[in-house]
Amino acid sequence: MSLETARSLVADDLAAVEKKMHKAVSNVYTPLSDVLGNLIFSGGKRVRPMLTLLAGRFYPPDEHEKLISLAAAIEALHTSTLVHDDVIDGALLRRGQSTLNALWTPSSTIMAGDFFFARAARLVAETHHPRVIQMFARALEVIVDGELRQAFSARDWSQPKESYYERIYGKTAALFELATCTPAALGNAPHDHEEALRRFGYHLGMAFQIIDDILDFTADEKTLGKPAGSDLRAGIITLPVYFYIQQPERRRRIVDMIESHPTGDPIVAEVVQLIRESDAIEQAHNEARAFVDKALTDLEMLPDIQEREALAIVARYVVERSF
Amino acid sequence: MSLETARSLVADDLAAVEKKMHKAVSNVYTPLSDVLGNLIFSGGKRVRPMLTLLAGRFYPPDEHEKLISLAAAIEALHTSTLVHDDVIDGALLRRGQSTLNALWTPSSTIMAGDFFFARAARLVAETHHPRVIQMFARALEVIVDGELRQAFSARDWSQPKESYYERIYGKTAALFELATCTPAALGNAPHDHEEALRRFGYHLGMAFQIIDDILDFTADEKTLGKPAGSDLRAGIITLPVYFYIQQPERRRRIVDMIESHPTGDPIVAEVVQLIRESDAIEQAHNEARAFVDKALTDLEMLPDIQEREALAIVARYVVERSF
Repeated sequence: MSLETARSLVADDLAAVEKKMHKAVSNVYTPLSDVLGNLIFSGGKRVRPMLTLLAGRFYPPDEHEKLISLAAAIEALHTSTLVHDDVIDGALLRRGQSTLNALWTPSSTIMAGDFFFARAARLVAETHHPRVIQMFARALEVIVDGELRQAFSARDWSQPKESYYERIYGKTAALFELATCTPAALGNAPHDHEEALRRFGYHLGMAFQIIDDILDFTADEKTLGKPAGSDLRAGIITLPVYFYIQQPERRRRIVDMIESHPTGDPIVAEVVQLIRESDAIEQAHNEARAFVDKALTDLEMLPDIQEREALAIVARYVVERSF
Repeated sequence: MSLETARSLVADDLAAVEKKMHKAVSNVYTPLSDVLGNLIFSGGKRVRPMLTLLAGRFYPPDEHEKLISLAAAIEALHTSTLVHDDVIDGALLRRGQSTLNALWTPSSTIMAGDFFFARAARLVAETHHPRVIQMFARALEVIVDGELRQAFSARDWSQPKESYYERIYGKTAALFELATCTPAALGNAPHDHEEALRRFGYHLGMAFQIIDDILDFTADEKTLGKPAGSDLRAGIITLPVYFYIQQPERRRRIVDMIESHPTGDPIVAEVVQLIRESDAIEQAHNEARAFVDKALTDLEMLPDIQEREALAIVARYVVERSF
């Protein structure tokens, strides 16, 4: 099965999700609906709603529409955190486009993020399922906690690997596990199957973020849609950096380079080059592969329907992608 | 009945709400729990949870704890919007204390607001009541919509009075009506009683914000805990300004003064003085009184328990308060 075949299994549902998100944005105060619309329709890959829709096929809910609302809620929450993250990171480019942050004032950007938060809340409330809503609220706490941890751990060069894992759990894996376990809860799946889907989402999300963090070193600005090494520039220590600085002389070298030129782009580009050419990239890749292997194992206990194969395809794609 | 007697009716419940909010903050990433704790315990009057607790006495829910969660959720949502508003307004003082905005970077402030959002979501999810959760999500949309409207209507000197009312609905009355109608929904009150409580909250919230906007002209900096005329400084046209500029020569005068010195404090102080001494204050006061009268009428159809008298006391206090 190809990735496109996997996606085509839920193509109609994905179209319904797009439509629902469009509707959620269109009832807003007029001068803004275009801007907010562009933001949510600016070319995300819709990986998360795709996971929700595929995971929802094992134990379909009483009303199919609730699954659509759930998938739309997850994408709206994702959009909301992207918007706020752009202010937090001071990012000027995302997906090759100017971020809202670069075009708007911080306050408008906060409001736009809050707007998608509010939409996510309404969409998830449409499931009328208290446990699903509780899972959603809990994930939101983990996500915000991750943002706080990231902000407070910047430039801490001696942090353990666990700090990185805690942070990317909040940054990415919490939403991935939400995307895969809430449809199971909505469909009243047996507990062990819900748990398998949750773990699948968690492991996949961890791998996804590690690959993202590798690409921040190995891909070029054009492919990334933003400058390489942007996390490093903000002092955020991702897995390739972590592995690189495990050798004391390397650590001294790059800490010196960065701390003595805290905002210097040429210096960051030089450090990016050092890390890109080191074994740290392969070490990080191995960890991503290990997470994907766990994700594939998680799927084994689930009913053998074609959507299970589709989820496996998505998981394999995550470690193989180069953008 | 005095305001203190009214408050004492729900004193134990208010203490339980404080405890629940404390717990919600204490499980956070350690370096932040003090800061976030200070923020939520920095001396709000707890008007909104008090309303929720009093309104919850007409039709008590199956589990009393759910009412406590709901009241805590409403205060957490209130705190969250205050924090984001401080970034949006660029306010440096609130309740006489430095705002988070003045102490922190915008990004930390966004995260702190998001943190209280997440806590509010978890607390309301604890009610396990889909309709209550839906009302919450809907109110959040109205609140964010109000922020957007406020930002986009600044310095529009010819806006109709309805624009002001739409904005303060989002800014204040949406949360007040949420505070009074959700306990009714939670207790499965008859529809007309839920609706009466909703309208009571709405009318009270409108009056509350008009009085706040009047105090921004009539109170001194020490009482306000922030400089007088701060909305006007940001170009926000509140009801006293609206009434003042209905006379064309007054409008020309202050628009000239403000537009030609957009950030000048002395000029704002002069305009504040002009408005304070005009009949615009009394005109705004009359509108606030009319809203409170409607709120008092809304209460009439509700069961005649002492909490009904307590709600009336709170309503009267709102228009009489001088801080």
